[in-house]
Amino acid sequence: MSDDREPKGMNRRRLLGTTAAAGAAGAAAAGTVTHLVGTAEAQDRRREERDDRSRPQRRPERQSNEVHPGELDEYYVFFSSGQSGEVRIYGMPSMRELIRVPVFNRDSATGWGQTNESLKVLTEGLTPETKTHLAKLGKVTFDSGDLHHPHLSFTDGTYDGRYLFANDKLNTRVCRIRLDVMRCDKIIQLPNQFTVHGLRVQKYPRTGYVFCNGEDRVPVPNDGRDLDRPDAYRSIFTAVNGDTMQVAWQIVVDGNLDNTDADYQGKYAFSTCYNSEGGVTLAEMMSAEQDWVVIFNLQRIEEAVRQRNYREIGGVPVLDGTRGSPLTRYVPVPNSPHGINTAPDGIHVVANGKLSPTVTVFDVRRFDDLFDDRIQPRDVVVAEPELGLGPLHTAFDGKGNAFTTLFIDSQVVKWNIETAKRAFRGERANPIIQKLDVHYQPGHNHSSMGQTKEADGRWLLSLNKFSKDRFLNVGPLKPENDQLIDISGDRMVLVHDGPSYAEPHDATIVHRSKINPVHRWTRDDPFFADAVKQAQADGVNLMEDSKVVRDGGKVRVYMTSMAPQYGLEKFNVRQGDEVTVYVTNVDDVEDLTHGFAISNYGISMEVPPQATSSVTFRAERPGVYWYYCTWFCHAMHMEMKGRMLVEPQNA
Amino acid sequence: MSDDREPKGMNRRRLLGTTAAAGAAGAAAAGTVTHLVGTAEAQDRRREERDDRSRPQRRPERQSNEVHPGELDEYYVFFSSGQSGEVRIYGMPSMRELIRVPVFNRDSATGWGQTNESLKVLTEGLTPETKTHLAKLGKVTFDSGDLHHPHLSFTDGTYDGRYLFANDKLNTRVCRIRLDVMRCDKIIQLPNQFTVHGLRVQKYPRTGYVFCNGEDRVPVPNDGRDLDRPDAYRSIFTAVNGDTMQVAWQIVVDGNLDNTDADYQGKYAFSTCYNSEGGVTLAEMMSAEQDWVVIFNLQRIEEAVRQRNYREIGGVPVLDGTRGSPLTRYVPVPNSPHGINTAPDGIHVVANGKLSPTVTVFDVRRFDDLFDDRIQPRDVVVAEPELGLGPLHTAFDGKGNAFTTLFIDSQVVKWNIETAKRAFRGERANPIIQKLDVHYQPGHNHSSMGQTKEADGRWLLSLNKFSKDRFLNVGPLKPENDQLIDISGDRMVLVHDGPSYAEPHDATIVHRSKINPVHRWTRDDPFFADAVKQAQADGVNLMEDSKVVRDGGKVRVYMTSMAPQYGLEKFNVRQGDEVTVYVTNVDDVEDLTHGFAISNYGISMEVPPQATSSVTFRAERPGVYWYYCTWFCHAMHMEMKGRMLVEPQNA
Repeated sequence: MSDDREPKGMNRRRLLGTTAAAGAAGAAAAGTVTHLVGTAEAQDRRREERDDRSRPQRRPERQSNEVHPGELDEYYVFFSSGQSGEVRIYGMPSMRELIRVPVFNRDSATGWGQTNESLKVLTEGLTPETKTHLAKLGKVTFDSGDLHHPHLSFTDGTYDGRYLFANDKLNTRVCRIRLDVMRCDKIIQLPNQFTVHGLRVQKYPRTGYVFCNGEDRVPVPNDGRDLDRPDAYRSIFTAVNGDTMQVAWQIVVDGNLDNTDADYQGKYAFSTCYNSEGGVTLAEMMSAEQDWVVIFNLQRIEEAVRQRNYREIGGVPVLDGTRGSPLTRYVPVPNSPHGINTAPDGIHVVANGKLSPTVTVFDVRRFDDLFDDRIQPRDVVVAEPELGLGPLHTAFDGKGNAFTTLFIDSQVVKWNIETAKRAFRGERANPIIQKLDVHYQPGHNHSSMGQTKEADGRWLLSLNKFSKDRFLNVGPLKPENDQLIDISGDRMVLVHDGPSYAEPHDATIVHRSKINPVHRWTRDDPFFADAVKQAQADGVNLMEDSKVVRDGGKVRVYMTSMAPQYGLEKFNVRQGDEVTVYVTNVDDVEDLTHGFAISNYGISMEVPPQATSSVTFRAERPGVYWYYCTWFCHAMHMEMKGRMLVEPQNA
Repeated sequence: MSDDREPKGMNRRRLLGTTAAAGAAGAAAAGTVTHLVGTAEAQDRRREERDDRSRPQRRPERQSNEVHPGELDEYYVFFSSGQSGEVRIYGMPSMRELIRVPVFNRDSATGWGQTNESLKVLTEGLTPETKTHLAKLGKVTFDSGDLHHPHLSFTDGTYDGRYLFANDKLNTRVCRIRLDVMRCDKIIQLPNQFTVHGLRVQKYPRTGYVFCNGEDRVPVPNDGRDLDRPDAYRSIFTAVNGDTMQVAWQIVVDGNLDNTDADYQGKYAFSTCYNSEGGVTLAEMMSAEQDWVVIFNLQRIEEAVRQRNYREIGGVPVLDGTRGSPLTRYVPVPNSPHGINTAPDGIHVVANGKLSPTVTVFDVRRFDDLFDDRIQPRDVVVAEPELGLGPLHTAFDGKGNAFTTLFIDSQVVKWNIETAKRAFRGERANPIIQKLDVHYQPGHNHSSMGQTKEADGRWLLSLNKFSKDRFLNVGPLKPENDQLIDISGDRMVLVHDGPSYAEPHDATIVHRSKINPVHRWTRDDPFFADAVKQAQADGVNLMEDSKVVRDGGKVRVYMTSMAPQYGLEKFNVRQGDEVTVYVTNVDDVEDLTHGFAISNYGISMEVPPQATSSVTFRAERPGVYWYYCTWFCHAMHMEMKGRMLVEPQNA
């Protein structure tokens, strides 16, 4: 095939593949993973074996991903945003971003990180050590985060529409988002553990536990001791109670944990480990040919907690799950495994080899025997097919097929689980059904409802790193590329390239029938209960009254907001006052959000229908400061404003 | 037509229209704008006159807006984001968001608002009064903004690909974004003026001036004097020099300015005024039947500056442009006009009536005579067609037609300028060609290249407030709806609903041939020149050296970043040190962005290819803190990490 005939993106993808591969090869030279990359000739041969070039297809035989004006998408997609720190909700198959949910980031539009209501969420779950640390810096919370893995609460093996949970790799936090209002209501920082990477939830009987992998190893407690003694470092796996958002228990393990998942029986959780070596340099981390998957026995752990077989550190029970513990089992797998994914059949679990071209398939029905020492660790393995270079994550169609991302090959490979098991048993069988090029380096992938027992086998998302020349050039910083693939037929068909801002690591695809958000807040919502309580103490009915209450050097300004007017046309404060403004949106109209902003004071917040929002600041600058509505609400929206008159201190 | 036969969105839109109209009517009762809304019967009649119901059309005869995998969009769209404070770049016609450019907001992904390079941009242009104010609060800059009007620099009447300028309504700032790297390089806060709303640029001979409407009236200076004496309040119009990002001059005017535009001759700028009354309450602001457009004579203003006919306030020249000044003219127009738009013909300017069902068309060729007092102000008006309820903004196709948003009618109306002029001269002629329903309340609209002399008449965007039931329900806070309309044929055809997060007020549609960003930064870029200078002083070659320089209680950590390793595997600091980390991305590969984050320290920043980024913090917490790469860079990206070892103070 000449270059002229190739789709435009191909040359660059090849370049990138070579670069990444060469880099890995260079790194590998320090270790022993020479089978990872192979020679350039071998790579070329592999490319020629590809049976699909994903040339733009004008009218392939496929499901339509068009959603016409006025029509609704069939699926919600809950995307992480990595270092952007938020959650994004998309519609699928149109792949349109519907809303952002601020979590670990600051959000100028909603005042997330500025309103008292959001600050409560952002601060109350921090560890005492972090609170002390931030206070020394004159701060109350972090301004950034790294949100990787968004997973919805389950009941009986499928989504129940209550919550979404996600981790912050940057500052070791776990958040919960209420799916009725699509707002984060709880954030907890995990003690002892250093960073959270993999996060999944209990699928049965319900969530239940939120499982949180500690990725990096540090001294416990990490207070300055054992600074450069890596042998004294520990990594920790945490189970959070999803109902209370408190730590249920922690367990010390060996190696850096990567991703995690759970079974459909409510008995086990399991995590991949990519640094069984306990190394602190790249060469050390890559030195072993095998790492492992750690299996956690939930019943035994709960029993140990009941028996108080733990140390209490940082206010939570910490158990010992290192090698040899009855609470865990370590199953060797090649090499630095990354993703781990439970199939909708409730039986198979796939660990993805990353530095090995294989994935390892476990049968969870054998885990009881493993814990009872009736079989050896590797006896739980029922297949280990070689799929291609850099297997990272696997999705499922609910029909016995699996879809694995190959990040070095820049492909998604469709393969059959039963065929792979036959091959593992020694039969002559090739489990690989099709390889599809993606653009360019795929990380997570996701099938519609594929992380539940209700996988429907219709759509697959491949979340690719690097977009290179797939979109208009927007300068040095380019979007990632989330590609939509039709998997409803025998063969995968690429149907849509979706640019996305830094950096969807993960997503959950949920049929719209599972999600039922409200249109308005209710007045007894706990989210703004503090404001309601303060108003009651001040004799203020938030839905009706607009008044200013002076309380020494503190001033509480209460005002209603009804399009296109605030309850107060102006209010006076004195320079130096600590001012809290409570705005209550009394409009009982769907989609009628108000805002409240004070110009040149940097104050800006959202006030949703039937909710109260509040913000506290010191009025340090005298003069006339107009406040105005920031969320379009009415024909006379621009005229919806008033004046804060700050009287000079020495006047 | 029965409800059953109506498209699903219609009932709600009617409800909303009624709500908004009723609200406006209520407000109007306090004033005299009874012609604004009319009776419910009149509204129904108008609805029946609509000639298009925008029912979802499966296969209308239209341009395709599909952009298949691997294909590129034809246009860039630069969107404002209102209270989100950023700029967004989309591809059109696919309407996919390609990238976010942080400006007035904080951005967790890039470290905007945390890196030294971004803090320099965010702080150095603030007024001395704001710097003092923020210092009292323990801050150096604002964390939020309200970015409304993004406009690209011109040369000779069309885009020259150099810069984008935009305003911050929240904190009275103007930003400049470099289109080579798509990054904000300058922010200036305007002195004296209170808020910036309308912003446009000089089109000829080049930009040149950036024109900034002061919206709200306050005392000048606003330091506590005349707190509740609205008659002493003033509003100000500012011209910023787009090359230096310094204020060229300011001019005091009467009334609240709203939007602004300029001619294609380089002689005039003109702004709408929606509060000629100088009122401070809603009733006062709406009391007059007419407001005005203010025309600014640039040559006379420049001459007055040369003659020093100004007062210097806040370090800048402030001229008098109130009624009667030779520098301005006030042209009465009905009623609270909002948008003002210059047609690509270089002759016609359209002011949109908002509270009047009319738009007012000016002929700029008559402005010379107006300033020479040879004609009366209203003699510059050449048409004033009645188009519908709530005309806000007008776009053009370059073929003599105009497209005006009707925010109460929830429609876009296509009309012909020459026909409107004939009707104005008394001929029997109906300029209205078609009305198209949009969903739901349209604000700005934009045609492809329509704000230049190269308008191509292919696409129209209608930026609608409220999306209600047009998308999957995502809770109380819903997206806006940016709709794409094909205007290449005789009739407008709605082709795409685009949900968008709070809240695109404005956009600029630019053919891709006009924009040529780079893929990598160059080492002599001024954006990180401070880092380069400091490194030189420390004898460090940023592209090669990784080392730690201690300077009393300050520690400067220099490290390279080359996938998948940092130049330093670890570094030591002491508790209490002021630490600056400089990371230089030495990878010379397109799209290979690195990140640098320190876990549990809240530090996170982007390091683009061939650039240096730096961040400064106090190491107040002892222990082992892993730093890691946040932007996917390589097969071994997860292993790209190192340790900051913070030695305890009392150790």
